[in-house]
Amino acid sequence: MDLGAVILAGGRGTRFWPLSRRARPKQVLDLTGEGSLLSRTLGRLEGIVRHDARLVVTGPDMVEVVRPECGGATVVVEPSARNTLPAIALGTWAAGRAGADTVVVLPSDHHVARPEALRAAIVEASRVAHGGALVTLGITPNRAETGFGWIEPGEGGRVARFVEKPPQTVADALYAGGRHLWNAGIFVFRVEALRAALVRHCPGTAAAWAAWEAGDPVEAAWAHTEATSLDYGVLEKHDEVRVVALDCGWSDVGAWSALDEVLPARTWGAGVCKEMVEIDARHNLVHADGKLVALVGVDDLIVVDTPDAVLVARRSDAQRLREVLDALDARGLGRYT
Amino acid sequence: MDLGAVILAGGRGTRFWPLSRRARPKQVLDLTGEGSLLSRTLGRLEGIVRHDARLVVTGPDMVEVVRPECGGATVVVEPSARNTLPAIALGTWAAGRAGADTVVVLPSDHHVARPEALRAAIVEASRVAHGGALVTLGITPNRAETGFGWIEPGEGGRVARFVEKPPQTVADALYAGGRHLWNAGIFVFRVEALRAALVRHCPGTAAAWAAWEAGDPVEAAWAHTEATSLDYGVLEKHDEVRVVALDCGWSDVGAWSALDEVLPARTWGAGVCKEMVEIDARHNLVHADGKLVALVGVDDLIVVDTPDAVLVARRSDAQRLREVLDALDARGLGRYT
Repeated sequence: MDLGAVILAGGRGTRFWPLSRRARPKQVLDLTGEGSLLSRTLGRLEGIVRHDARLVVTGPDMVEVVRPECGGATVVVEPSARNTLPAIALGTWAAGRAGADTVVVLPSDHHVARPEALRAAIVEASRVAHGGALVTLGITPNRAETGFGWIEPGEGGRVARFVEKPPQTVADALYAGGRHLWNAGIFVFRVEALRAALVRHCPGTAAAWAAWEAGDPVEAAWAHTEATSLDYGVLEKHDEVRVVALDCGWSDVGAWSALDEVLPARTWGAGVCKEMVEIDARHNLVHADGKLVALVGVDDLIVVDTPDAVLVARRSDAQRLREVLDALDARGLGRYT
Repeated sequence: MDLGAVILAGGRGTRFWPLSRRARPKQVLDLTGEGSLLSRTLGRLEGIVRHDARLVVTGPDMVEVVRPECGGATVVVEPSARNTLPAIALGTWAAGRAGADTVVVLPSDHHVARPEALRAAIVEASRVAHGGALVTLGITPNRAETGFGWIEPGEGGRVARFVEKPPQTVADALYAGGRHLWNAGIFVFRVEALRAALVRHCPGTAAAWAAWEAGDPVEAAWAHTEATSLDYGVLEKHDEVRVVALDCGWSDVGAWSALDEVLPARTWGAGVCKEMVEIDARHNLVHADGKLVALVGVDDLIVVDTPDAVLVARRSDAQRLREVLDALDARGLGRYT
């Protein structure tokens, strides 16, 4: 078995504004002072995926900002963003050309506290995938999260069903039941197994694959790919989908308020800065690269400093950054977004 | 009558940290976007004090940072900080040499909303001082402030007594009485009247004055001056002290929390920055020169951004910056103070 990796790095995301911008998406941010999320994602593959079988898929306008974070990996340019299915197909096709017979698909902007657990699960999933199944890694949940899809494991490692982002009462029940797992967008399958599944469920994408194989430019057939996710387009329809459980301290780092999930535990404020002084201040998250940050009498704040913008937000309002960006656009201040 | 001005610009002040530093005291800060407090203090003298009779007294290590804010005024260097009396004596002596027979003494770091009222009061005080009295300008109070000294007016414009910073119950009574005024450190007197008062009450400073007059360098006699305030050293002992009431929208701009006293009224956040976006945010004060500031879900904060430090403090904790500076010194981070 020769394992390749397809890293999805086409996302934009506004939830880490003002650090993230149109031109600087979340995956290239260094939120913890230990390197960008993308470079750390690649680093976790050390020892299980050789460098020339690592493919990073991103958009044409993000190549320049993504490439420096790619180490020895190859950047694959998707002509336009069409959800995950076309990107995964393109990346998997490219991994096959690079000699891989099996691939692991990974988001580029997540955090993993215990990479060795992730590697072990990928290796285990590769073994399962050897029989032709499409395998998804299911995260052992630690809360009744409504923001993720859940996976219901069935007999013999099969996926019984996928549960879309559930309402709170459902999430409570799923979490209490102790069997369901989170869908983290990490998949393992044989190149040929994906191709066969596409032929069955997504003929447009299968045709595009055939065109790439025949030497057509990627752009030519791109418009024929199904603009959907792998989950909707393939996994929910396919009969051979398996799940491998994974407990690796995973976080999707979905907003500034999640930052302390990915930082070393501290009683007081946490974040990236040069120095921090706290006087009667608790549970604040900061990002002020190279600066001293002093907090006096404030709790539960997010404080972000960048060369042209400063954000101070209540932690519980971390999801409201969209309102800031809308206000900026409405005032003709799109240069800040 | 030829009126000179002595501007006291020797203060350091930590209450506007991180904008104010050891090397950049409050009086040279532009807190409102309309120029430094010092340059605006000088600007208020337009039309009543000629430029070459304006003396700005400061310390030797602050000359370079103070001078650019002085316009046509002369910088007088006091060899060391010894409270206000020696600085006022030195400045008044220098004003006399510049041809003034009467001087107005002004702090360099206060705010005046209605300069024309200040100018009228200075002219009126000069007339009162013509008879030989030392005149203090008393601010019409707008609250029962415990942080200032108060002046009790007596018969015929005389000062009946000075009240030191009073406890709250006393301040309440003084304010409710409607007669007392705040001591703002603004004085008007004839040069010869101050000299005569020094001879009577402060012989060391009078001797220093005589030495300067005789051509000795300022340093030579400096150690003999009384290291005290004009209030303690002279006014409280002198029999010819008068007060002129002044209602000019005065503020001592004593802390970040006073910033909205000196800024144009706004319902929402206020301060100096390039752009401001507020989402569910109220009564915040910001200083982030040249930057966009976005505030989400936060109230009553002070947010200050400088090239090497960021401060976020609860407004009611504005007086606790001393604790930040102490913590920085204790951690060997004095370069930030």
